[in-house]
Amino acid sequence: MTRAELIDQIKRKKSFLCVGLDSDINKIPSHLLEFEDPIFEFNRAIIDATKEYAVAYKPNIAFYESTGAKGMESLRKTLEIIPKECFTIADAKRGDIGNTASMYAKAFFDKSSSGFDFDSITVAPYMGIDSVVPFLEFQNKWAIVLGLTSNPGSNDFQQNELRNSKRLFEEVVSRVITWGTASNLMFVVGATRGKDIAAVRKQAPNHFFLVPGVGSQGGSLEEVVEFGMNNDCGLLVNSSRGIIYASKGHDFASIAGKEAQKLQLQMQEHLEYHKII
Amino acid sequence: MTRAELIDQIKRKKSFLCVGLDSDINKIPSHLLEFEDPIFEFNRAIIDATKEYAVAYKPNIAFYESTGAKGMESLRKTLEIIPKECFTIADAKRGDIGNTASMYAKAFFDKSSSGFDFDSITVAPYMGIDSVVPFLEFQNKWAIVLGLTSNPGSNDFQQNELRNSKRLFEEVVSRVITWGTASNLMFVVGATRGKDIAAVRKQAPNHFFLVPGVGSQGGSLEEVVEFGMNNDCGLLVNSSRGIIYASKGHDFASIAGKEAQKLQLQMQEHLEYHKII
Repeated sequence: MTRAELIDQIKRKKSFLCVGLDSDINKIPSHLLEFEDPIFEFNRAIIDATKEYAVAYKPNIAFYESTGAKGMESLRKTLEIIPKECFTIADAKRGDIGNTASMYAKAFFDKSSSGFDFDSITVAPYMGIDSVVPFLEFQNKWAIVLGLTSNPGSNDFQQNELRNSKRLFEEVVSRVITWGTASNLMFVVGATRGKDIAAVRKQAPNHFFLVPGVGSQGGSLEEVVEFGMNNDCGLLVNSSRGIIYASKGHDFASIAGKEAQKLQLQMQEHLEYHKII
Repeated sequence: MTRAELIDQIKRKKSFLCVGLDSDINKIPSHLLEFEDPIFEFNRAIIDATKEYAVAYKPNIAFYESTGAKGMESLRKTLEIIPKECFTIADAKRGDIGNTASMYAKAFFDKSSSGFDFDSITVAPYMGIDSVVPFLEFQNKWAIVLGLTSNPGSNDFQQNELRNSKRLFEEVVSRVITWGTASNLMFVVGATRGKDIAAVRKQAPNHFFLVPGVGSQGGSLEEVVEFGMNNDCGLLVNSSRGIIYASKGHDFASIAGKEAQKLQLQMQEHLEYHKII
C-alpha cells in the first residue's frame, strides 16, 4: 500500500485505528471452540465488526506461531479476508543479518514464496542497517522499526542516554530515518509517555508512527494526538485487548465493533480539530 | 538440555562446533530438487555427515519461514532427526512484550502446542526484561540473547557508548546477566572482533557464548578461543555456509563432513591446550 492510499483511507474512514489481532485460543469466547478453526472464526467476526472503523489490522505473529502449522494457516486465511483497503501489519519484530533479513522479507511480503502478502512488518533495530534495509526493497511495502516500545522493559535499554546526549530510542530513530523514506518506513512509538512521543516526532516530522499501548497498557489517545499527530495524521493507533476481548460472550463481535467505533469517533474529533478532514 | 549435559558432550566429542542450517532452496545442490522435500533431504545428509563433529545445530528460522508452511514442515522434520545428544538452537532472534514473548516460547519450546521442542532460542534484547524472562521459565531450556553480532550493522547501535562509559552491547550483557543464570542464559558474541569478545567475557565469566562469524564472515577461531574460552569451554562456535555449502556437487555431504572435521580437530587442540579434555 502506498502512503497516499493510506492517508486517503484515514480521511475516508475518519479513523486512524489499527486493530491488533492478538488472538489467543485461551482467551477467545468458548463457544468458538466448536469450529474447526476457532482462531480464524474469531478473527473473521472481529474483522467484520470493526472494518468500518479500522484502517489497519495487526496480527501479532507470536500468537499464530505458538500453535505451529495450524496457527500459521489461521493467519494465512485471516490475511485473505482483511478488506483490501486496509493496511496490514505483520507484528513480527524480526531482525537479522542482511541475507537472513531478506528471507524474513520473503516470509511476510512475497506471497508466491510463503503465502503471505502483508503491507508491512515490524522490525527490531538492534542489529543495525543490514537488518532493516532488505525490507525497504519491496515496492509499496513498509518496515515499521521499533523506536520506543510501551512495555516495562523499554526502560532497560531504550531510555539509556548515550555520550551524544541522545537516548537510545532517539538515536535509533535519527539513524534509521536515513535508511528509507516516509513512504516505506514507520516507527513504533509507545503511547505510554507523551513527551517521548514528542521527542520522536521532532526527529521524524513526516513519518507515520504505529502507536501501541493505548487502552489496556494505560496510554491516552489525547496525549498521543497532542504530541504525535502531523499534517497527514501520521498516526496508526493500535488497540488489541481493549477491542477484541471487550466481551467473551456470544456478543463478542458486536461489542468489539462498539469499542472500535468509540475510538473511531474520538479519532474523528481529533482529525477534524486538526483540520485533516 | 542441562549445562552439565552440554559440557559432557563437548568433552566426549572434543568439539564445540555448532552447524548452522541456513538451508536455502536456491543454494542447495540441484540434484536434491528431485525430492519431495529438498530442504529436509539436504539437512538430513548434512546432519548425518557432521553429527560426529558437531555438538549443536542451529537452523536459522528465516530460511524456513520464507517458504511458508512447507518450510516450517521441513524444519519440524529436521528437528526430529537431530541426534538427541546435540544441543538445538532456534535462531529466531525473537523479542516482544511479556505476554507475547510467552507465546514465542511456546512456539519454540512446547512441542504439544507448536510441534517444536528446541533446547534454546536466540532473543533480541531491545525491548528489555519482559521480552527475555518468559524464555527462562522453561526447565532446561535456554535463551541466547544478542550481545554483539558479527554483521556490518552491529556498529550502528551495539557499539554506541553510553553515559556510563559502557558500550551498548556491554550494558546489554551486564544487565541481562542478572535476569537468569549460566544454566539458562547464553549470549551471542560475534567472532569478528577479538577484543570485544574479551570485553563480554569480563562481564560474563561463566556463561556460554554462541559465536557466529567464524569462516565466511572473517572471524578467526584462534581469536575466539584466546579471548572467549573459559574453564568449561564456554563456547559454541557456529559455522553455516563454510560447512553446508562447501560443495554444491553430489559430494556435498561428505565435503561438509570434512569441513566439520577440520574445525573439530582445531577445536580439539584448543580444548587440550586449555586442559578442558
